[in-house]
Amino acid sequence: MEPSMRQPLVMVDTALFTIRDERLCLILARRQEPPFAGVLALPGGFVHVEEDADTAMAARRVIRHKVGFDAPYLEQLFTFSGPARDPRGWSVSVAYYALIPLSLLDQSQVAETWPAEALPPLPFDHSQIVAQAVERLRSKATYSSLPAFLLPGEFTMNELHRIYEQSIGARLDKASFRHKILEQGIIEALPDRFRVGAHRPAQLYRLASTALTPFERKI
Amino acid sequence: MEPSMRQPLVMVDTALFTIRDERLCLILARRQEPPFAGVLALPGGFVHVEEDADTAMAARRVIRHKVGFDAPYLEQLFTFSGPARDPRGWSVSVAYYALIPLSLLDQSQVAETWPAEALPPLPFDHSQIVAQAVERLRSKATYSSLPAFLLPGEFTMNELHRIYEQSIGARLDKASFRHKILEQGIIEALPDRFRVGAHRPAQLYRLASTALTPFERKI
Repeated sequence: MEPSMRQPLVMVDTALFTIRDERLCLILARRQEPPFAGVLALPGGFVHVEEDADTAMAARRVIRHKVGFDAPYLEQLFTFSGPARDPRGWSVSVAYYALIPLSLLDQSQVAETWPAEALPPLPFDHSQIVAQAVERLRSKATYSSLPAFLLPGEFTMNELHRIYEQSIGARLDKASFRHKILEQGIIEALPDRFRVGAHRPAQLYRLASTALTPFERKI
Repeated sequence: MEPSMRQPLVMVDTALFTIRDERLCLILARRQEPPFAGVLALPGGFVHVEEDADTAMAARRVIRHKVGFDAPYLEQLFTFSGPARDPRGWSVSVAYYALIPLSLLDQSQVAETWPAEALPPLPFDHSQIVAQAVERLRSKATYSSLPAFLLPGEFTMNELHRIYEQSIGARLDKASFRHKILEQGIIEALPDRFRVGAHRPAQLYRLASTALTPFERKI
């Protein structure tokens, strides 16, 4: 029967982004085991058929064990495969990505954040995974509520605009951004709540209760 | 070492669409082997680590063997996984989709086309794969040159408009469709070539040489 044939190795890899010092960064972890022991890499690991319900749950487990926090959400990116991407043999890696609030990283002892534009050399095909994840993040972030999840509970329109620009690494026209965001109803104004600063008081907003996960609503 | 652990089964499944009698159809093939021998299913099969360069090449091989033609292009859809989707054990299926010209099917002895809205009961999680493929096709087709690849070399604007509507299963405003298509330069008018019929002669177009594959250009 066919399944007795040699099967590929099956693993998951995760491209976890965050914004630090106003720059898009990637979370890397130092590998504990060979191959490439001691080298910084995307957090990844084998699927465990005895305990994982699917590859998304495998990715959550890997993040918990290798980075030290519970990922609030993950989106499947792409599945990479072939005989050469891992020295241990023909392998399939189901890659996931997410945009993680920096505050979550406080729980992690081992994660390092590196600017996406200035990463160290990465093992396996992790550079290719990162390139694809950055591209997907940029195209998704522009049209989803994704970057809004990086902000604290209450924020101004300026803060929201800035986090979108940082997530996609490009300028967004402020007026049309504001129009699009309000039209789609992913945020709601907090009645009588304003941030008072050097300028005139700025209206405070929060994510609308309908914007449950960053990938569900498109703007 | 970790790779000595039990690995999941790794397979590919393909959702191949075509337009027949102006309806979006799916290509199904009758399974030759257990499980579900004799049952109509998405063409699929195991990855062969000895011969496949990656999962996309595995999908091409499966289509060649099980459906009988060379797929002109394939797009990765999603990777499905878990202990219950296949009775043979914990499995990962990398799913692909494509929109295939009906003429290619003339080469096939075994493929059956079924309207996407009236499929027979499918084995494994193939219904879920189909649902996701239909959704992706509809969102992609609207903004890509994908449906144009179903047409013969020369076509009128009306024919192009119709094949887009059939691919996404929805009405598209004719004027704004025409505007969008021409603006993006995915087709070019053939000088002095017109289709003459009951109405006034209709300008003939062809795909622009820059529209190399259906997924490369977005409209």
